[in-house]
Amino acid sequence: MNQQKRRIEIYDTTLRDGSQGEGISFSVEDKVRIARRLDEFGVDFIEGGWPGSNPKDVAFFEQMREVKLRHALLTAFGSTRRAGVRPEEDPQIRSLIDSGASAITIVGKSWDAHVIHALRVSLEENLAMIAESVAYLKQHVPMVLYDAEHFFDGYRANPAYALRCLQVAFEAGADRIVLCDTNGGSLPQSIAAIVREVRQALPEAQLGIHTHNDSACAVAGALAAVEEGAMQVQGTINGYGERCGNCDLVPVVAALRFKMGYECLLPDSLRHLTALSQYVDEIANIAPDTRRPYVGRSAFAHKGGLHADAVLKGASYEHIHPEAVGNTRRLLVSELAGSSSIAGKAAEFGIRLDKKSPEARHLMQVVAEHEHAGYSYEGAEASFELLLLRTLGLYKPPFTLKGFRCITEKRGTDKQPITEATVKVEVNGQERLTVAEGDGPVHALDGALRQALLEFYPALERIKLTDFKVRVINGRAGTAAKVRVMIDSTDGEQTWSTVGVSENVIEASWLALVDSVVYGLIRSERLYEALSRPPVLTEKTSSVPTSSPSVSESAAS
Amino acid sequence: MNQQKRRIEIYDTTLRDGSQGEGISFSVEDKVRIARRLDEFGVDFIEGGWPGSNPKDVAFFEQMREVKLRHALLTAFGSTRRAGVRPEEDPQIRSLIDSGASAITIVGKSWDAHVIHALRVSLEENLAMIAESVAYLKQHVPMVLYDAEHFFDGYRANPAYALRCLQVAFEAGADRIVLCDTNGGSLPQSIAAIVREVRQALPEAQLGIHTHNDSACAVAGALAAVEEGAMQVQGTINGYGERCGNCDLVPVVAALRFKMGYECLLPDSLRHLTALSQYVDEIANIAPDTRRPYVGRSAFAHKGGLHADAVLKGASYEHIHPEAVGNTRRLLVSELAGSSSIAGKAAEFGIRLDKKSPEARHLMQVVAEHEHAGYSYEGAEASFELLLLRTLGLYKPPFTLKGFRCITEKRGTDKQPITEATVKVEVNGQERLTVAEGDGPVHALDGALRQALLEFYPALERIKLTDFKVRVINGRAGTAAKVRVMIDSTDGEQTWSTVGVSENVIEASWLALVDSVVYGLIRSERLYEALSRPPVLTEKTSSVPTSSPSVSESAAS
Repeated sequence: MNQQKRRIEIYDTTLRDGSQGEGISFSVEDKVRIARRLDEFGVDFIEGGWPGSNPKDVAFFEQMREVKLRHALLTAFGSTRRAGVRPEEDPQIRSLIDSGASAITIVGKSWDAHVIHALRVSLEENLAMIAESVAYLKQHVPMVLYDAEHFFDGYRANPAYALRCLQVAFEAGADRIVLCDTNGGSLPQSIAAIVREVRQALPEAQLGIHTHNDSACAVAGALAAVEEGAMQVQGTINGYGERCGNCDLVPVVAALRFKMGYECLLPDSLRHLTALSQYVDEIANIAPDTRRPYVGRSAFAHKGGLHADAVLKGASYEHIHPEAVGNTRRLLVSELAGSSSIAGKAAEFGIRLDKKSPEARHLMQVVAEHEHAGYSYEGAEASFELLLLRTLGLYKPPFTLKGFRCITEKRGTDKQPITEATVKVEVNGQERLTVAEGDGPVHALDGALRQALLEFYPALERIKLTDFKVRVINGRAGTAAKVRVMIDSTDGEQTWSTVGVSENVIEASWLALVDSVVYGLIRSERLYEALSRPPVLTEKTSSVPTSSPSVSESAAS
Repeated sequence: MNQQKRRIEIYDTTLRDGSQGEGISFSVEDKVRIARRLDEFGVDFIEGGWPGSNPKDVAFFEQMREVKLRHALLTAFGSTRRAGVRPEEDPQIRSLIDSGASAITIVGKSWDAHVIHALRVSLEENLAMIAESVAYLKQHVPMVLYDAEHFFDGYRANPAYALRCLQVAFEAGADRIVLCDTNGGSLPQSIAAIVREVRQALPEAQLGIHTHNDSACAVAGALAAVEEGAMQVQGTINGYGERCGNCDLVPVVAALRFKMGYECLLPDSLRHLTALSQYVDEIANIAPDTRRPYVGRSAFAHKGGLHADAVLKGASYEHIHPEAVGNTRRLLVSELAGSSSIAGKAAEFGIRLDKKSPEARHLMQVVAEHEHAGYSYEGAEASFELLLLRTLGLYKPPFTLKGFRCITEKRGTDKQPITEATVKVEVNGQERLTVAEGDGPVHALDGALRQALLEFYPALERIKLTDFKVRVINGRAGTAAKVRVMIDSTDGEQTWSTVGVSENVIEASWLALVDSVVYGLIRSERLYEALSRPPVLTEKTSSVPTSSPSVSESAAS
């Protein structure tokens, strides 16, 4: 069978199956935003929810009536009619039609044991439930899909009955027959064999595949099904979903397009893959998994000296070009890396550093010491750049810190605690003592520091904190563990991330905050012209300020 | 070919390839502990490090001389000899022998392009490098393994040369020929086809497979290779490794044993799989991924009302029994769950709650409100149990909070900040005002609270905080985001987790801490006999204290 350039439909259930994942909770507005983005990306179906089960989903479909999708078919999900009730009298079926969705997917049983013990109906009645529901819905919407729940287990248990379920759905007019490995327990080889047999039994049916990741093979299972003739893959962005997640559409579309020669989505879609993945993570308020295939921050990050060296030499250690999926290559600095990585990193910041120079070796030592203390510069590039500049004596600090104090207090009758921060700094020989209140320590410290510096550096007005993350490290020591705080900031043009580490969460926040402000001021006050004229560092040149760093507090020094 | 009950070797490279993962850094002691644990678990090879490249690894092998492994072969990793140098004169080769390892694995090139452009030697010299290194090492250790780097890409580019590399290694005496998909770009179907051809070309060779997860198919690729005759799988625990990680041995061994009919490890190993996974995460100081197949906290967690209901009814929605891998089933409470889940959850705590009762509906509403405010009870079961008990009026609070204050302060000349916490409580009508210092706010608040309560509740002596986690939620609001703090505590017998949510990290910590102490005291003072005599809740019975909760601060109420 010639499968060259066959088009594979992408069916996204991030908003339905994906939203059942632990820790995921989408508001209606979140769902509408994601739906728009998925449509732009080019998916064929957007399964938006289960209106018959979740009032929030009814509201979602209501709002989607105002939204004109350009590519995707908005799809409502539900189940076959209840036993002993006609489809037209089943409120759940009614809700699917009322949703206004262009396509309807209904799930039904195909495993005889589930029909008998979970649904508690006869095998015949189940077939009627499937056929009648599909036929009825086909009268109301142009596209009806049938999800055969637990299909692979059902087929292994009773292949004749499982196929019969598919057959009645197909004959009733289902446009797609989707084989679901609902408990995620089927291995790809088994999925391939069964899909092959289903294709033989029902050669006219348009088959879809819906896998779960309980055996760590959801993506492979979906791709194996496509190889055997499935023309639709159902999954979620970033593999969200119950238990171990649904099939992750991200590596699926990349494999289909770049490795298997299929068409899918729109011609230009894949270059937006990384951005889409990050967008959905952001809406879901999930810390992105850096190791996500193709789109993770680490996906093309080379650490081992051997690899980094080879990558720099041009030899390919990458299976695809990062840019093809909108990602970038990174060289990591760590104890395992040789001086090649430090030099490569410095070059990224516009500093030409000879990897064999004493400066490079000193820098490696300083980095190693900080890492030993718990600093991680991954995800906090600006702090690393500051460490470089500070260690190499390449900028004049914009202020000196004299101290801070942070008080959080709550009386029994108060509804909220009060947080107040006091900061003392010195700028150009002038001391400033300021105080500010805030929702929490970071907010209050930021307010007090800003107050002190704003009169000297009005550019601070533009700089805002946009996000902060806290991570406890060395947790084995209990409450004496270290805390790593990362802060994202922006000046409206660029965003940068900084880090602070301390046993004290307040101090860790303070250190990350100071780095953030210093970095922002270095940019705005042009305290170091890194990006325009990279100096060659053999000795300190006169075009670069020569005063040694005098930041007197322990921020990353 | 009859592959029934064939034994598959498990080769663990957590300590070498795995340690190259971003964010992973093992001390020598960490590695020794993990090595011991892996040996107990029953792996066949423990690849401990690269002595010729990393001084920490030299130290590791030194220490391992004192450790008697019972099952596993301690293995040192390195590369073929340098070009133009005899093996006996190559210090890196020497270091492999000096390590004292029982087995040595050397990696060599099998992709002609890499030989020419990265190694910069002739194709013939590369073959000599492979053959001579293997032969020389075979004179010094009983077991030599040859890792064919980038094998699948090399085979696709120049199959004759790639096979020739394997052949010279085999003829030189390599006991294992390991095919590595080093850049993780090969799909399982391609791996299967190539392994099949290698088996035909080298039927006597004992083949191993070493995949990476860049295409999200590392596990499936390894299993496909085993189906084609590979007898060894190389990978890491929890899939640690560079970029997107190595092949995760956890789902591999579960699939081999439970789904494919192979033998591996020791007869009883699989029941310890979850504990092993958590152990390695703990040593690596990595927050465990709750969605890990088989061993994640969510792997057998059922959220959707449909599924939870069916699971409770006995129908199987699980692909294996959680206990078979040392995991447990969980029912999650969330907005998506019906009252069945709440009742099921209450039953877990020994409370018989009729899912149709007004109490159940009130409880669902309270839970929904808390979730809306940012509370997540997943991973904080004790706080949820307290919420249940509090809402249902089932215990007498052991103390009343009157207030707290926490001060963190640092002068420019100080090395460390000082943190001081003051707490006011009332116990049995008596007021106590205490103060304590600590490394950070949680530590200080814990100290002050403990001081206040210890005279009334000496059992507090046994209760200790073991870990705390901080997560920023709703990060889009910048520094006014909410913070969720989770605390683990233990009384030496049981461990429990509690949660606090607030815009203020101090208050969030405080709330989690208070819940932790209250829960501990409820257990020790027997303020509620949940686990021994579940009451039937139709009205408040006389065996249960009837005073309504009067915790006057806003902890989860």
